[in-house]
Amino acid sequence: MSDAPDLEFDDRGLLPVIAQDADTGDVLMLAYANREAIERTRETDRAHYYSRSRQQLWEKGATSGHTQAVREIRVDCDGDTLLYLVDQEGGACHTGHRTCFYRTIEGEHVGEEVFDPDDAYE
Amino acid sequence: MSDAPDLEFDDRGLLPVIAQDADTGDVLMLAYANREAIERTRETDRAHYYSRSRQQLWEKGATSGHTQAVREIRVDCDGDTLLYLVDQEGGACHTGHRTCFYRTIEGEHVGEEVFDPDDAYE
Repeated sequence: MSDAPDLEFDDRGLLPVIAQDADTGDVLMLAYANREAIERTRETDRAHYYSRSRQQLWEKGATSGHTQAVREIRVDCDGDTLLYLVDQEGGACHTGHRTCFYRTIEGEHVGEEVFDPDDAYE
Repeated sequence: MSDAPDLEFDDRGLLPVIAQDADTGDVLMLAYANREAIERTRETDRAHYYSRSRQQLWEKGATSGHTQAVREIRVDCDGDTLLYLVDQEGGACHTGHRTCFYRTIEGEHVGEEVFDPDDAYE
């Protein structure tokens, strides 16, 4: 008997996934996953998501090299959000920052730039 | 001139908010906020959200006493997700756990129980 938590997908078949740096605890990004993205993540231990804009499965870092090795996946109490605990290669954010949360709501810049986005994306 | 980031709400007028323990770095929960919930959070420094099931503004801990004092609010790169850095009173999860992410996707129990939910909610 397995007590694996049931997952609750929204009406688009998605749920939000928080990626957190497994060492520093920094919250790196939030993206979405469908069932296939979660299965691919579990099979490969590399973070996969579902791109709502491109409407396709997406392996984080496949283009940029900024991959996420997934150490553990956690599920929240009501099964509608996941937490990927990851080893982040380079930076998680397409802007070149380590984390997508590099600004306060007042606009103060608090995040570290770790790569030049012009070099990573075409 | 303010460079406060623009916020991008979804078609329900909501965006996801990650609450993170400002001291330990633990990701505590994910909930949703509308513009009013964010304004109330900024005015009071106490975490407010919007309950999708009850369709109303919600102050975290108003019933249970398990409030979140908000130290800082961060915005992600595309302005559609917030991060509340909080001092969590008691536990964030209605199940009595410190964090809602107390299970792995395999069903292993990894989170700490910090209160009896029967005492906190009616």
